[in-house]
Amino acid sequence: MATTAQMTEAAVRRRAEEALARCRKLASFSEDQGSTRRTFLSPPIRDCHLEITRWLEPLGVAVRVDGAGNLRAIYPGTRPGALHLLIGSHLDTVPNAGAYDGALGVVLAVTLLEALDGRRLPFGIEIVGFSEEEGVRFGVPFIGSRALVGRLDEELLRLEDGRGISVREAIEDFGLNPAEIPRAALSGDALGYIEFHIEQGPVLEELGRPLAVVESIAGQSRIELTFLGHSNHAGTTPMNLRYDALAGAAEWIAAVENKARSVTDLVATVGKIDAKPGATNVIAGEVRLTLDVRHGGDEIRTQAVKNLVSQAQAIAARRGLTTRWKALLDQRAVPMDPFLIAAIERAITKSGASVHRMVSGAGHDAMILAEKIPASMFFLRTPGGVSHDPAESVAVDDVGKAIKCGLHLLDELASSPSIRERM
Amino acid sequence: MATTAQMTEAAVRRRAEEALARCRKLASFSEDQGSTRRTFLSPPIRDCHLEITRWLEPLGVAVRVDGAGNLRAIYPGTRPGALHLLIGSHLDTVPNAGAYDGALGVVLAVTLLEALDGRRLPFGIEIVGFSEEEGVRFGVPFIGSRALVGRLDEELLRLEDGRGISVREAIEDFGLNPAEIPRAALSGDALGYIEFHIEQGPVLEELGRPLAVVESIAGQSRIELTFLGHSNHAGTTPMNLRYDALAGAAEWIAAVENKARSVTDLVATVGKIDAKPGATNVIAGEVRLTLDVRHGGDEIRTQAVKNLVSQAQAIAARRGLTTRWKALLDQRAVPMDPFLIAAIERAITKSGASVHRMVSGAGHDAMILAEKIPASMFFLRTPGGVSHDPAESVAVDDVGKAIKCGLHLLDELASSPSIRERM
Repeated sequence: MATTAQMTEAAVRRRAEEALARCRKLASFSEDQGSTRRTFLSPPIRDCHLEITRWLEPLGVAVRVDGAGNLRAIYPGTRPGALHLLIGSHLDTVPNAGAYDGALGVVLAVTLLEALDGRRLPFGIEIVGFSEEEGVRFGVPFIGSRALVGRLDEELLRLEDGRGISVREAIEDFGLNPAEIPRAALSGDALGYIEFHIEQGPVLEELGRPLAVVESIAGQSRIELTFLGHSNHAGTTPMNLRYDALAGAAEWIAAVENKARSVTDLVATVGKIDAKPGATNVIAGEVRLTLDVRHGGDEIRTQAVKNLVSQAQAIAARRGLTTRWKALLDQRAVPMDPFLIAAIERAITKSGASVHRMVSGAGHDAMILAEKIPASMFFLRTPGGVSHDPAESVAVDDVGKAIKCGLHLLDELASSPSIRERM
Repeated sequence: MATTAQMTEAAVRRRAEEALARCRKLASFSEDQGSTRRTFLSPPIRDCHLEITRWLEPLGVAVRVDGAGNLRAIYPGTRPGALHLLIGSHLDTVPNAGAYDGALGVVLAVTLLEALDGRRLPFGIEIVGFSEEEGVRFGVPFIGSRALVGRLDEELLRLEDGRGISVREAIEDFGLNPAEIPRAALSGDALGYIEFHIEQGPVLEELGRPLAVVESIAGQSRIELTFLGHSNHAGTTPMNLRYDALAGAAEWIAAVENKARSVTDLVATVGKIDAKPGATNVIAGEVRLTLDVRHGGDEIRTQAVKNLVSQAQAIAARRGLTTRWKALLDQRAVPMDPFLIAAIERAITKSGASVHRMVSGAGHDAMILAEKIPASMFFLRTPGGVSHDPAESVAVDDVGKAIKCGLHLLDELASSPSIRERM
C-alpha cells in the first residue's frame, strides 16, 4: 500500500493549488452576477454537481443526488459492501459569499480520493456535498445534513421561502423526488464523518498554526432583552429625573463584555439594538437588544446567561427601569467523537505540525451528523478571520498541510485495529 | 383702575377651569380622528381661529389672520396708536398631541383680556396664535414666529411637505396671500412678548412649585457620531480579538451620561442608535449615534461637546476602532429680556408664590421674538413632565396662579416708569 510520505512537497502543493482553483471555480456558479450566492437547490447548485461529477469521472466514481439534494459519491473499499467513511461539507453559500466556506470541504474530499492514486482502503469513502447548511433560503439551517440523520420531516418540508416556495416544491423543482428523502438517511454502514472547514475566526492565525482539530461544537444561547424606561424631552428633563432606557442598555452591554472577558473561552455578543422612539431630541423609553452567548461547556454558558439577566435586572432596578426578556435559542454543546479526535491528532502530528484542539463557535454539518455517527472536523486557518465575505481566503500551504493530514488520517484509520475488526 | 387683588379666589378658579375647557375644545379640532394633530394651516387651524374669534367677540376685539397664518387680535390701550404688548403661543401641535402645549398660552392671553373686565391699560395687548412652532409638516419649526421677525423668506416658502405641497402653496390653499407676509412683521410699536407655556419637563413638579420665569432658552448642539470596527462572527471570534463597534459605543453612552451628571444644569442625550449589520450572531462593525447637548451657557455646552468627541476618540483608539463625526446643529442660547424677567418675578412675588428662574431646554416662539423685541416666558408645572402626549396635563390651581401672575404683570408694566415714558 502506498503511503502519504511518498507524496513530494511539490505534488502536495500542486494538489493544494488545484483544490483552491476548484473552490474558485465553484464560486463562479452563482445566483447573483458579480458575487457568489448559492441557496438551497438554486440552479448554480446543479452546476456544482456537474462540475464535481467531471472531477470524479477519471476515478470511476459515480455521483448521485439524494432526495434532499445532497451530492453523494462512493469510492468503494477493498471489499464490496464494506463500511464507509463520509467526508464532505456543504455546497450552499450565504449571499456575497467567499469561495471556501463549505466548498473547500467537498473539494478536499475529492483531492484525497485523487491522492490515493487508485489505492483502495479497507473501508469505502463517501463524498457528501450537503445541499443546505447556511439557512439562507428558508431561515432554517442544515436541511441537507438533517436528511442524513432522518430529521428532514414534514414540518420542515412545508417551510416556505420569501417567494412562497416550500422546501418540498424546491426539491421537486430541482427534478428530485421528496419521497426519496428517507433513502438519504445513513444506514448502519457509515463509519463516521470527517469535515474540513475554514475556521471562520482569527484564533489559528493569532496562534500561528495552520490546522486544528475540533473537539466540540459550542452550545449557544440567544435571548432578547428589553429595557423599559420613560421616553422624555431631551432638553427639558434634567439628568437626575431621567429614566433613560438606552443609558441602562449601554451599562449592560459593558457588563456583557466584562463577563465574557472574565470567563475563559466564553464569548458573548450584543449584536442588535433598537432604541425607541429613536429621535435625536427624545430620551429613549424602550431599548431592545439581543444577546448571543457560546461556550463548549453547557453549564458555563447557561450560568453566564443567568448572571447577565440578573445584572440587567439590577442595572434596571438602580435606574428605575424595568426589564423583559425571552429565550430565543438554547442549544447544547455537541462533543466530537473522541476516537476520531485522537486519530486526527495523530495525523496532524505525523504531518509534522503541532496539535491544537478547538471548540467551534459556529455550527457545522458535523454537529448534525454527530447525532448518529462519530464525527469530527479539521479547521483551517482563516486569514484575518474573514468569512462570509468575498475577501474570505485560505493559504495554499495550509491547504497542502490539510491534504497531508487527511491522507495520514486515512492511513491511521485503515490501520486501526478497532476499525479493522468492524470491517 | 381695578386691580388684580379684587378678583376672588372663586373667580380665579372659574377662569382657570374655563381656560382648561377651552384648551380641550381646541384639542378637539384635529386632522386625525381620536387624537390631536394640527400641522401648519391644516383645516383644524381654521376651526381654532373661528373658536377664538367667538371668545373675543364679547370683548369687541377683532381677529385677523396674517400672511403667515398667525392669528392676531389687538385689544387697544387707553390711547390710540400706543405701543402694545404681545401675548401668545402657537396653535399647531405634534401628532398624537396633548391639549395644552401651545394652546394654553393663547387661551391664557384671552383669559387675561377677559379678566381685565373692560379696563384699558396704557399700552395695547396683541394676542398672537402662531401658525407653526413644532416643525412637523415641513421639518422646520417656528414658521409663524419667523414671519414676525421678518425671516419667513423665499427659501422657507419653497420647502415642501411629504405630499410635495410647499409652504407658499399651503398659505394659498388656506385662502391667504403670501404677498402679505411682510405685513406680518413686527413694527416699532411692539413693547415686548410674553408667553405662557407648560414646562414640558419634571423640574417644577420636583421642586413643588407651580410657576417659573424663563431666564433663557438653552443653546443646543447636535452631532452624529459613528464608531467603526470590524463586523465578525459572534461565535468564532474570541473576546480579545474583537473590534466591536457597539461595545465602544456603549462605553461612550456611559461617558455622555457621566459628563452631563458632572456639570450643573447640563443635559446630554444619546437618543438614536443604529448598529450594523444588526444581527444577533454578528459583532457590530459600525454603530451610528446621535448626541444632543443643551445648556444655558454656550461655552459650557461647546466645551462639553468637544470633551465628549475627545472621549469617543480615546475609547475608539483603546479598542482599535475609529470614529467619524459631524455637527448637525449648533444653536446659541437666547437670553430672555432682563426687564421682563424682573417684572415677571415681581408679579410672581405679588401673587404670593416664590420665584424660580429656569433655563428652557426646549425651543419656543419667545426665542424667535427675542431677536427683535424684549421677550420672556412663564412656565407652568407639567405633571409627570409629560408633554407631546395625550396624557399631557396642567393643574387648575396652577393655571389660576398663572392668571393672577399675568394680571399682576400687566399692572406691573402699566405702572412701570420706563414703559410709561415710552407711551
